[in-house]
Amino acid sequence: MTNITEDERKVFYKVLHSRRDVRSEFLQKPIPEDVLSRILKAAHHAPSVGFMQPWDIIIIEDQSKKEELKQAFIKSNNKVADLFEKDKKKLYKSLKLEGILEAPIGVIITCDKNRTGPVVIGRTTNPEMDVYSSVCAVQNLWLAARAENIGVGWVSIFENDDLKRIFNIPEDIIPIAYLCMGYVSDFHEKPELEKVGWLPRMDVNELIHYNTWEDKNESK
Amino acid sequence: MTNITEDERKVFYKVLHSRRDVRSEFLQKPIPEDVLSRILKAAHHAPSVGFMQPWDIIIIEDQSKKEELKQAFIKSNNKVADLFEKDKKKLYKSLKLEGILEAPIGVIITCDKNRTGPVVIGRTTNPEMDVYSSVCAVQNLWLAARAENIGVGWVSIFENDDLKRIFNIPEDIIPIAYLCMGYVSDFHEKPELEKVGWLPRMDVNELIHYNTWEDKNESK
Repeated sequence: MTNITEDERKVFYKVLHSRRDVRSEFLQKPIPEDVLSRILKAAHHAPSVGFMQPWDIIIIEDQSKKEELKQAFIKSNNKVADLFEKDKKKLYKSLKLEGILEAPIGVIITCDKNRTGPVVIGRTTNPEMDVYSSVCAVQNLWLAARAENIGVGWVSIFENDDLKRIFNIPEDIIPIAYLCMGYVSDFHEKPELEKVGWLPRMDVNELIHYNTWEDKNESK
Repeated sequence: MTNITEDERKVFYKVLHSRRDVRSEFLQKPIPEDVLSRILKAAHHAPSVGFMQPWDIIIIEDQSKKEELKQAFIKSNNKVADLFEKDKKKLYKSLKLEGILEAPIGVIITCDKNRTGPVVIGRTTNPEMDVYSSVCAVQNLWLAARAENIGVGWVSIFENDDLKRIFNIPEDIIPIAYLCMGYVSDFHEKPELEKVGWLPRMDVNELIHYNTWEDKNESK
């Protein structure tokens, strides 16, 4: 059995806790093939329901495709700003929420619900389990990138129909994430939305319940 | 900036690639408070859309609650076996798919779509982004547990209505995962469903596309 030592555990947490959602710090330094390959392998070794491995990965380096997505982002984001109340609206408009054009590569992770046939172990009572597997692949990729000192930012402000049109994604494939990826000048110490005062970090102890939902904040 | 060295990167991948979905190898050794606390902190430091931190965590140690869930699993699983064709059905019935009673603790991760109000940065065009955040918390927890030499198994064969009833989860809270957690006698070298020949590990290169969906299996 592969044992993880105390020192190794600390290294793991160092990677996990220094992962950030990156929007502004991308460098133009290219990502070597072997580095990208290790990161994609990490995504592919995510858990998947019934071992169906429902993901596909689209690597985007074509700047014209990124331009098209940026336009889709701008269209959606303009509609969004008006949803926030006065003070929040001003702050919202000042936030940089994506690095689509600046990141050397974009990565799309999808979910193919038909990957291994109609019946999948573990998806029979919860039809969303395949989508959850693809999200696990995103998180594996994100952490692996951090271990390679590469930043990742998840962009979700565009219509999925626009994304599917731009990248010719078939009708029955579900886009899960568009990720901006590249080396960075720096990783922020804290999440940017925490730093600018958008929302505070919650106390994890207030989110823990014991045995049933109503038993909260009690020692076991 | 926290730099991750080559040696540290290798440690990270060692943890990531030795993570397994555990069903059979749970030991009765209790999980110390500080260990559990580090694992839950890792979950809480997952990325979340608009920093909304939509998750709650229910820790289950009550054996009678586990028994109720086991019954819900058995009820659902009996219905499932008949969905598989002849050979697969026999294999399916031979598989152990959960360790609900054996795992010292169960962990439920949920998603509260109303956590920070109706408008959330990044959830405006894709309403599922909050659910995806809670899945990222699951994957962080899973990997952190592995770094602590603790096994995790995601059980998804029961009706969510049963889960909500057993643990008194409010109507508007979405259960994302029920995780069995505990120290283990061993971690399998490969995923169990791969080992028993249920499905093969796919070649990741067959899942990679370049710039558009149709450009596949080509060097950049």
